[in-house]
Amino acid sequence: MAEVSNRQVILRDYVMNGLPKESDFELRSSKIRLSVAQGSKTVVVKNLYLSCDPYMRIRMRNSIGSYIAPFTPGSPITGRGVAKVIDSGHPNYKKGDLVWGMTGWEDYSLITEPETLFKIEDTDVPLSYYTGILGMPSLTAYAGFYEVGSPKEGEYVFVSAASGAVGQLVGQFAKLKNCYVVGSAGSKEKVDLLKDKFGFDEAFNYREEHDLDKALKRCLPDGIDIYFENVGGKMLDVVLLNMRLHSRIPVCGMISQYNLEEQEGAHNLLCLITKRVRMEGFLVHDYFPMYPKYRDMVLPLIREGKITYVEDIAEGLENAPAALIGLFSGRNIGKQVVLVAHE
Amino acid sequence: MAEVSNRQVILRDYVMNGLPKESDFELRSSKIRLSVAQGSKTVVVKNLYLSCDPYMRIRMRNSIGSYIAPFTPGSPITGRGVAKVIDSGHPNYKKGDLVWGMTGWEDYSLITEPETLFKIEDTDVPLSYYTGILGMPSLTAYAGFYEVGSPKEGEYVFVSAASGAVGQLVGQFAKLKNCYVVGSAGSKEKVDLLKDKFGFDEAFNYREEHDLDKALKRCLPDGIDIYFENVGGKMLDVVLLNMRLHSRIPVCGMISQYNLEEQEGAHNLLCLITKRVRMEGFLVHDYFPMYPKYRDMVLPLIREGKITYVEDIAEGLENAPAALIGLFSGRNIGKQVVLVAHE
Repeated sequence: MAEVSNRQVILRDYVMNGLPKESDFELRSSKIRLSVAQGSKTVVVKNLYLSCDPYMRIRMRNSIGSYIAPFTPGSPITGRGVAKVIDSGHPNYKKGDLVWGMTGWEDYSLITEPETLFKIEDTDVPLSYYTGILGMPSLTAYAGFYEVGSPKEGEYVFVSAASGAVGQLVGQFAKLKNCYVVGSAGSKEKVDLLKDKFGFDEAFNYREEHDLDKALKRCLPDGIDIYFENVGGKMLDVVLLNMRLHSRIPVCGMISQYNLEEQEGAHNLLCLITKRVRMEGFLVHDYFPMYPKYRDMVLPLIREGKITYVEDIAEGLENAPAALIGLFSGRNIGKQVVLVAHE
Repeated sequence: MAEVSNRQVILRDYVMNGLPKESDFELRSSKIRLSVAQGSKTVVVKNLYLSCDPYMRIRMRNSIGSYIAPFTPGSPITGRGVAKVIDSGHPNYKKGDLVWGMTGWEDYSLITEPETLFKIEDTDVPLSYYTGILGMPSLTAYAGFYEVGSPKEGEYVFVSAASGAVGQLVGQFAKLKNCYVVGSAGSKEKVDLLKDKFGFDEAFNYREEHDLDKALKRCLPDGIDIYFENVGGKMLDVVLLNMRLHSRIPVCGMISQYNLEEQEGAHNLLCLITKRVRMEGFLVHDYFPMYPKYRDMVLPLIREGKITYVEDIAEGLENAPAALIGLFSGRNIGKQVVLVAHE
């Protein structure tokens, strides 16, 4: 089979600090063979949707000893996506299969470790959902809320970055658990979404609150049992002042800190002692074996309309860098996805 | 029965910030009746040993909503101690009983809630031990290490303030669990104690290390599974950089921060995520029901010489304020106790 043209999103060089810019990336055209080599167990896929996730900022930095390898400057970046198998040397996959998992930011990718892919069986829901509510961010929300957060009925839950890919699900899971749920987000539109679409009991726009402590005390006068931490920085510091006895902080992310050279400090950690707070970091990687269980739980909820998901879909690979960068200024409303190609 | 003279250590006024001074206290002579009123369930005790504990600094501040009530200026301060019952209206106690628990910093105290006292049955060990290895600090070490720290055989354990009332026991418990144990302390004498008397595998003087991160990497090149946190501040920040995957930080205290107006920030909390660290505050108050179990475990170890305990005993109630204040400059070597009277 002849080679075809393959557009790729290339990271020009490491971006150690500051907000990444579109010019940190370039769209390059390359060539790829759409067949796997004889005897190889690799798979060639056509990428349909790419997922923009905050952790990818960490891979743009050449950090030593990080939990995840940095991107390689001059090469296409990688991330999770939904793709269609074009050719397969692996017994688990055949031409036409739909999959989600790690792929390249390009039209077509050669997947050298296809064991890491999940096969998509249920296609009565939007395929893009496998980057979000049926993909990594949702498993993050599920593991962080249920496994790390140990929620009890009726507890007070606060979620930051609450309209994002993870936050909107944490809030809905918490409502399903009969918790009282408050979210923070960065615009009126997002706050409205939290209250009107996701069923949060209360929400506030952190950019418009002069005093975050007052905002929390207004929305959660009795304090917080579970703080689902997505942002870090100043928000974490005031949240610590508002935690209840034996409360939990699943630490999922700290997006406000990812572009900073020096991290902001948390000054109120003494509250961990006085309130006996458990603060626990987690990574979704440890929970992938739980994915089938999660999927089987959430699919009926989606079909019955008991849980919903808002996506922000950028069209075209050429718009992928801007979509990724937009995460850090909060440009996206809901889960940021890039549509590369229709099936 | 006639009244007798009763010397009392009085807090003159709240000390909001800074190192407390001896002049923040005064020794006052008062009067007390050594008998309980007819029908009262109170107990009158003669105080023998008083315990100096870092948390008492928090009670010198008029902090609203703290986990523990502030001291009352103009009144004698309170703390844990060992005492002898002089008269009792409570069915559980009779004249001559030895007890430990909350009492006043004075020669004699009227105990209005004697239910909170523990009766001392085993007197073949020094009575002062009931302020330390058989009292609150030891239960703190036990609960923090075993319950919060969830130690496994062979793990790497780091303890700060390691020669203190709690630290010396954490280190010895960790050795009993076959862990590799490193401690930090504030003088050569203390470091020698850690290695020679308590069996720590390695120890360093944090005041003499220009770079705490290097000190940790020298003593624990493979990182830390359990950090028993007693000090907070800069030490916590570099420890975070050295935590291993799925490691734990039982947060017992942060003595370096108790005199500061503004707490130092912890800047490396992102490590909680990348290393999936559980950081959990605890207070011994939640574990008092476990005391009899702990006592029955540790008494044989003391008798067999398998565990040891170093005390720093100041003699005389008049020297109690200096002993308490000394905790914050690290003047004490081992558990700081005040001997008020012999039995």
